[in-house]
Amino acid sequence: MSDVGVTVKKSEDFSEWYTEVILKSGLADYAPIKGCMIIREDAYAMWEKIQSVFDAKIKQTGHRNVYFPMFIPEAYLKKEAEHFAGFTPEVAWVTMGGDTPLEERLAIRPTSETIMYATFAKWIRSWRDLPVKINQWCNIVRWETKATRLFLRTREFLWQEGHTAHATAEEAEKETLYVLGEYRDIMESYLAIPVLVGKKTEMEKFAGGDYTTTLEAIMPDGKALQMGTSHNLGQNFAKVFDIKFIGEDEKDHEVWQTSWGITTRLIGALVMVHGDDKGLVLPPKIAPMQVVIVPIPYKGAEPAAIAAKAKEVADKLKAKGISVVLDDRAEYTPGWKFNQWELKGVPIRIEIGPRDLKQQQVVMVRRDIGTKAFVKETEVAAAVENLLVEIQHNLYAKARINLEQQTTLVKTYDEFKKVLSEKGGFLKASWCGSADCETKIKDETGATIRLRPFEREEPVANCVYCGQTAKETVYFARSY
Amino acid sequence: MSDVGVTVKKSEDFSEWYTEVILKSGLADYAPIKGCMIIREDAYAMWEKIQSVFDAKIKQTGHRNVYFPMFIPEAYLKKEAEHFAGFTPEVAWVTMGGDTPLEERLAIRPTSETIMYATFAKWIRSWRDLPVKINQWCNIVRWETKATRLFLRTREFLWQEGHTAHATAEEAEKETLYVLGEYRDIMESYLAIPVLVGKKTEMEKFAGGDYTTTLEAIMPDGKALQMGTSHNLGQNFAKVFDIKFIGEDEKDHEVWQTSWGITTRLIGALVMVHGDDKGLVLPPKIAPMQVVIVPIPYKGAEPAAIAAKAKEVADKLKAKGISVVLDDRAEYTPGWKFNQWELKGVPIRIEIGPRDLKQQQVVMVRRDIGTKAFVKETEVAAAVENLLVEIQHNLYAKARINLEQQTTLVKTYDEFKKVLSEKGGFLKASWCGSADCETKIKDETGATIRLRPFEREEPVANCVYCGQTAKETVYFARSY
Repeated sequence: MSDVGVTVKKSEDFSEWYTEVILKSGLADYAPIKGCMIIREDAYAMWEKIQSVFDAKIKQTGHRNVYFPMFIPEAYLKKEAEHFAGFTPEVAWVTMGGDTPLEERLAIRPTSETIMYATFAKWIRSWRDLPVKINQWCNIVRWETKATRLFLRTREFLWQEGHTAHATAEEAEKETLYVLGEYRDIMESYLAIPVLVGKKTEMEKFAGGDYTTTLEAIMPDGKALQMGTSHNLGQNFAKVFDIKFIGEDEKDHEVWQTSWGITTRLIGALVMVHGDDKGLVLPPKIAPMQVVIVPIPYKGAEPAAIAAKAKEVADKLKAKGISVVLDDRAEYTPGWKFNQWELKGVPIRIEIGPRDLKQQQVVMVRRDIGTKAFVKETEVAAAVENLLVEIQHNLYAKARINLEQQTTLVKTYDEFKKVLSEKGGFLKASWCGSADCETKIKDETGATIRLRPFEREEPVANCVYCGQTAKETVYFARSY
Repeated sequence: MSDVGVTVKKSEDFSEWYTEVILKSGLADYAPIKGCMIIREDAYAMWEKIQSVFDAKIKQTGHRNVYFPMFIPEAYLKKEAEHFAGFTPEVAWVTMGGDTPLEERLAIRPTSETIMYATFAKWIRSWRDLPVKINQWCNIVRWETKATRLFLRTREFLWQEGHTAHATAEEAEKETLYVLGEYRDIMESYLAIPVLVGKKTEMEKFAGGDYTTTLEAIMPDGKALQMGTSHNLGQNFAKVFDIKFIGEDEKDHEVWQTSWGITTRLIGALVMVHGDDKGLVLPPKIAPMQVVIVPIPYKGAEPAAIAAKAKEVADKLKAKGISVVLDDRAEYTPGWKFNQWELKGVPIRIEIGPRDLKQQQVVMVRRDIGTKAFVKETEVAAAVENLLVEIQHNLYAKARINLEQQTTLVKTYDEFKKVLSEKGGFLKASWCGSADCETKIKDETGATIRLRPFEREEPVANCVYCGQTAKETVYFARSY
């Protein structure tokens, strides 16, 4: 870890700031392979928190984890033409095993629909075998040709992919939305990142599915980030992979399917949304460490008494289930430690010095807004518990206001372009529904329709591009 | 899932029995890629239990999880010559990204020493940065050319790999043995599989390390299974990857390292050691479901009352933290259900019929030995808790006796060959310590030295092969 703090201001060079904060805080490191990254201890700990929350929820609703091979025969990928076209440019191919060329080259999974559904066809015979609700936590490879960015776009990343098969369209629809709701809860209640939810357009949906639902957040640089997607696959894959079941009516039916995923890019979102010029700012519910205690041993004071007090406070907090690091390393100064833990985004810092010892208090410093408070020793556990809740709420509230401020209603294409270039963010615009207008806007401005909101908003103008009658209000943005 | 039970007897065709039990119990399935497998719900749940136990333990002792890329540049693999020679025949190579040939082909990790240690060289500057203690849970690829077997030898498998760097040889030694102890605890206390522990010979050790410690179990067919290994790497990789630190003495030193791993093959061991002619027999501490409740609704009885009672019992057990499945599916008969849950190895079955209802009792059936008992409703939770402990102990005790019965002291090479071909198992033999004898025995009989026990056993004869003075007693076996 470098001794030097963040050298770039978030407001001045967002992209540089992002990379510097990640590297210096120790969340990640570059790998010796182009486009790949090393997910380091603190980032992986956050991923584990996301995993444990989501995993527990989907298990409660009857989903179970599995592990499918990461190798997919080329023939499988090709079965669903649209799906294949969607992924083939970015597939990494294994062609040799030891010194022997493979007979058929193997794709490393860019996603697992094809290999899983070929197997579903074997597993599913009758209505008794339904629903199938499985999930896997695994690595994914997409051989990006665009410039890669830590967490946001790397050639290998981690995700979960859920895959289900149901007897009815209604169940698949319900499942698609159920998962979306759980995703939203993780993003808003844990990551403290507000999201817009809705459907993707035909052009932007998952290749091979019926429709895609999405959660979109806005980053401080005005670009949208797709935080997760939940796809209703309809019967498309069932037809291609021949996944049939004998119903209670004793007739053959094709299953209805869903698939859904969130990835380690969520950690990139956390950095961007909450971080500041001093480094990471982590929401307490996702922070690997919630509290750091730094004893301040002034010369001539009683270092042993301070150390004992620090230990006592740490134990009190741990007993409440709060994660605490007691930084009593002799080889670093308190000031150096403050900087390091601020860089790492620990929500609360507690300082204990000779004066605090005498006055039976501690100093408590909030990472999010930097304020300092003196707290009586007897009240420290309760105060920390309350403050963790408050910080969590505050981070969400701030991000919520930011989302609102970064959402602009535009009525004309001139206005659209002006807002996009000057301010960015989400552009609420009326749209006629044609892929033609959508494509032209994308080609001319780089903005895409991020979503069609679930709660239909009546168009307040004609189509922002062609001027014809608009069908709906949609959200455009440039995106990661 | 097939309606038909296991058709092969364990004692008649062990290998066929093994495969059939795994496929029919739903632990795994063949994948459409040669040599790969699908780890299904119950097997993955067992892997998750192993993960959660081991993960919690190593975190308590300061290890943290990370994720490194699975791609390793060929140049890295080649850096440690012995290591490279050990793995290169079974490396899968990625040569294409999309339609573009890669400039340098990439290995899919057969293990991650090289990529991790190249990075350690960056991370470690001074004694303050030590120890580094990281672990990752990930997939591994070894392009086996031998016949593959579900869980035991597949081209892709899951594992954890721990990697540490220390300031002193003593610390590395301590770490190597610490991990071995945790592995042993999981195997014996959770999987109920007794193991022998010791060191590998120079010939059998991990390529590139100083020495390898190992845990070896014996399977019912008389072959040994390597259950896990913990390597003391000494300074070999530190020299190759230039991992130096400035000590408190302000001089440069090379770090001392360890690496260690256990894999999903442990699930194969569970199947082999405890399973019987009816299917899996799972130790309660590792079983995804510990109890199955089957209501028996005879004609003319009160199905609603029985269902309510079954639910009540299930809730009671769940409240104690016991995992329970209440199988109240109307479309299957009780007899069919009994077979299914026996196949799946659930430790305890509870039956509740009209007569039990009347007598305020339940029927409790042990999966391990098949005995039946009537238990008063009021005592059911306590009885289940006790029985789970008893089953766990019984499985271990049985396996322990089997290990002893399958260990034979042999004094001559004739005896060695006779016991090996007629009985198999571990052969305790005296050995002169020469690689030459070791190699010849391997070539002539297929048996290798599985371990040199930690607790030195004085040789009771001359070298079993050359007849020269023996240095030590070692354990030979044929192995998976």
